Amino acid sequence: MILTGTYTDLYQLTMAQVYHLSGKHKQKAVFDYFYRKIPFSGGYTVFAGLQTALETLEDFRFTSEDIDYLKGIGLDKGFVDSLSDFSFRGDVYAAHEGEIVFPNEPVLRVEGTVMEAQLVETCLLNIVNFQSLIATKAARMRYVAGTKTLSDFGLRRAQGLGGYHATRAAIVGGFNSTSNVKAGADFDIPTVGTMAHAFIQGYDDELTAFRDFAAHRPERCVLLVDTYDTLKSGIPNAITVGLEMEKRSQRLQGIRLDSGDLAYLSIQARKMLDAAGLNHVKITVSNQLDEYVIKSLVDQHAPVDVFGVGTSLVTGPPDAALDGVYKLCMLDGRPRIKLSENLKKITLPGKKQVYRVINENGNFLGADAIGLDGEDLPKIMHHPYEPDKAMPLEGLELEPLLHEAMRNGKIVNDTISLKDISSYSQRRLRMVPEEYKRFYNPHIYKVGISESLKEERNKLRLQYKK
Amino acid sequence: MILTGTYTDLYQLTMAQVYHLSGKHKQKAVFDYFYRKIPFSGGYTVFAGLQTALETLEDFRFTSEDIDYLKGIGLDKGFVDSLSDFSFRGDVYAAHEGEIVFPNEPVLRVEGTVMEAQLVETCLLNIVNFQSLIATKAARMRYVAGTKTLSDFGLRRAQGLGGYHATRAAIVGGFNSTSNVKAGADFDIPTVGTMAHAFIQGYDDELTAFRDFAAHRPERCVLLVDTYDTLKSGIPNAITVGLEMEKRSQRLQGIRLDSGDLAYLSIQARKMLDAAGLNHVKITVSNQLDEYVIKSLVDQHAPVDVFGVGTSLVTGPPDAALDGVYKLCMLDGRPRIKLSENLKKITLPGKKQVYRVINENGNFLGADAIGLDGEDLPKIMHHPYEPDKAMPLEGLELEPLLHEAMRNGKIVNDTISLKDISSYSQRRLRMVPEEYKRFYNPHIYKVGISESLKEERNKLRLQYKK
Repeated sequence: MILTGTYTDLYQLTMAQVYHLSGKHKQKAVFDYFYRKIPFSGGYTVFAGLQTALETLEDFRFTSEDIDYLKGIGLDKGFVDSLSDFSFRGDVYAAHEGEIVFPNEPVLRVEGTVMEAQLVETCLLNIVNFQSLIATKAARMRYVAGTKTLSDFGLRRAQGLGGYHATRAAIVGGFNSTSNVKAGADFDIPTVGTMAHAFIQGYDDELTAFRDFAAHRPERCVLLVDTYDTLKSGIPNAITVGLEMEKRSQRLQGIRLDSGDLAYLSIQARKMLDAAGLNHVKITVSNQLDEYVIKSLVDQHAPVDVFGVGTSLVTGPPDAALDGVYKLCMLDGRPRIKLSENLKKITLPGKKQVYRVINENGNFLGADAIGLDGEDLPKIMHHPYEPDKAMPLEGLELEPLLHEAMRNGKIVNDTISLKDISSYSQRRLRMVPEEYKRFYNPHIYKVGISESLKEERNKLRLQYKK
Repeated sequence: MILTGTYTDLYQLTMAQVYHLSGKHKQKAVFDYFYRKIPFSGGYTVFAGLQTALETLEDFRFTSEDIDYLKGIGLDKGFVDSLSDFSFRGDVYAAHEGEIVFPNEPVLRVEGTVMEAQLVETCLLNIVNFQSLIATKAARMRYVAGTKTLSDFGLRRAQGLGGYHATRAAIVGGFNSTSNVKAGADFDIPTVGTMAHAFIQGYDDELTAFRDFAAHRPERCVLLVDTYDTLKSGIPNAITVGLEMEKRSQRLQGIRLDSGDLAYLSIQARKMLDAAGLNHVKITVSNQLDEYVIKSLVDQHAPVDVFGVGTSLVTGPPDAALDGVYKLCMLDGRPRIKLSENLKKITLPGKKQVYRVINENGNFLGADAIGLDGEDLPKIMHHPYEPDKAMPLEGLELEPLLHEAMRNGKIVNDTISLKDISSYSQRRLRMVPEEYKRFYNPHIYKVGISESLKEERNKLRLQYKK
């Protein structure tokens, strides 16, 4: 699914028209992408969607249909014609995909002409906001699921075509597999599938349905056991079929529980399967799971092997969106600022780098410092809004987070596999101290600004106030 | 964006394989689509996405890439080969798109072979669940906005590619326009756009930015007035430019407020514009709007002309999903039921029709009756779970809701324009009594079952309990 130049808000085009007609379109601009609020009342966000975004930028074109449409809605014809050979030729600096990131720090920076940087804003935000939301949700589930298998079952409840990248983002955040065949095919993700109640309803009895399924799909056979009565019918019938499969030198892979008290039923199911010698048969649970239900099941020692998660994973309630924004910080060689009556909404001017403070064990200390790009490593970081709060950084290890990802419109690195992105993300999340990862009242990760960035911001504030 | 056969959950394919190999794939099946819970704690749901779903079913094919992929993940080769000439040839009965619908009543019915009906389940649910969610959110905003203009500004916060159909659904629910150019082009929706803060930041002062914009985009010029100081700078500068445009026989279309107290600022802005003789300049507001903020602004008589709504519209928080399901109700000529320990989750067997009860004024009475398809108009409707509750229907006008939409895999009606779908939906919503439309504790619309459907269900329940 290639997104063309019309995958945008109209105002990007009306602004581009003005830049074009006023001769400002070649001015060099720098934009920062950052978000303001961690979703799910959590302590961190997983940055995801970078690879998708970069590929989209590389291919971003206006087709001849786009051009015709834009001429028909009142845009200037000369300007619209100029779009026919438009491509994004800017540079992108970004955190690695899967990085753990915090509010108000630039996570991605676009440098290019003001026109090209503006034209890609909407699709960039659309991609990165959504995948970061879902990867974060997935990471919360991975955090409580430990090493158990997490599988995405969400496509039917996904927000339309959003389900496609939801699956990709779920893997970034630590999921193992998906029921979504299209996403599985395109992103090389293991696909899994069991059976629906309708399949069993289609037979006169459950045992015959199970037998037929095992006969015609013996590989990775998972039987759904709650259609009639889980303990009295579903599990006994699954055991019968599992034992019959053993005799044919086949193995029943698992059963799935999709209703009732999943803690109680999984414990009973495990006992019954083990008593029948089917210790290898795995237990999948599904039905309105989210990170809290998974945590509760794990806390109760429910012998669940696979969690199948749908709606909550792929739509990220209750937030349903990450509030990422894209703000101009330099134009024509000069730092720019956006003022606001709300101090927290004043933007940070200039081209910037983000430094993660590493503690003596090589883990994250709990602080990121934003400095000006090119300045020496900051020796102190200031609270962004409270004048008297500061933290010395001397002697601490600082790791820069923003790396070159695209140069002159071309992706600079080889494609990293989704599996490697996911491993990176999980490794980084392990480096975050526990108090930032708990669900209730997580500790707040500090994000400060360097001395020189603070001075730059204050200088510009005064200048604009005049 | 054509969805192919892999836009599905893997289990649809594993079940299809079993149907195919066991020779059951040509059995005739009937499935019902219905939902269980109204989103947003509201009193109704707007059924949307039908046209998208029907077009998807008509085009549903397995490409050669799909076939290759499916062979590679362990499905039976003979079965997968048989998919290469698969197309959906079933029948669909559905409520008109835009219809106001209620929990547990079939809104759409698929009839076909069990294999084809099952293979299209996921994409059907994916499309209809999402568009119905967003159309419902939009309708709630339309309800409180009266005749004011509602515009979708949500693409950047949408759930990835979900933003495309979110815009379509917003129009079904009563929105007037969108910033989403791609959706505007494909669904013939008016597109609108103003300017971003970055545009103004790119100039040394706001007035020059406004002048440049007005000079190079005088048509539909809307100036964003909150970059520095709304009342002291933004509006006065907009007035200056508006008056300059008058002299050139041009008209400033509007201003946009994007922060601060929108009620207070819109009142002040209106006064200032009117005092300058710019009575025709419209006021757009944006910034985290939802149905509650819109209602509050309307209740305060804020002189707003256009509401620009983003995140809340296109992602539908806090629910973020409609819980629509797809359940087998007939197979091989026999009604089927899915039992559950939860009485409310027992499905309604057989092929059914839904009747809306019309009151003496031609509006909706507040009751829908589900009957068996082909039976006489029901004379009484029973509460679906409480045995003693019933309501006589004799002498009342009953309107059938399900109509033939697809026959042998072909759409039967001419395409209805999105505008007409939207008008229909709004007309139908006006027929719903007020007490079902309020936001807090809306009245519960009754959905009952006919005598014969009740008997059929009870007969099957007893039969399966044995």
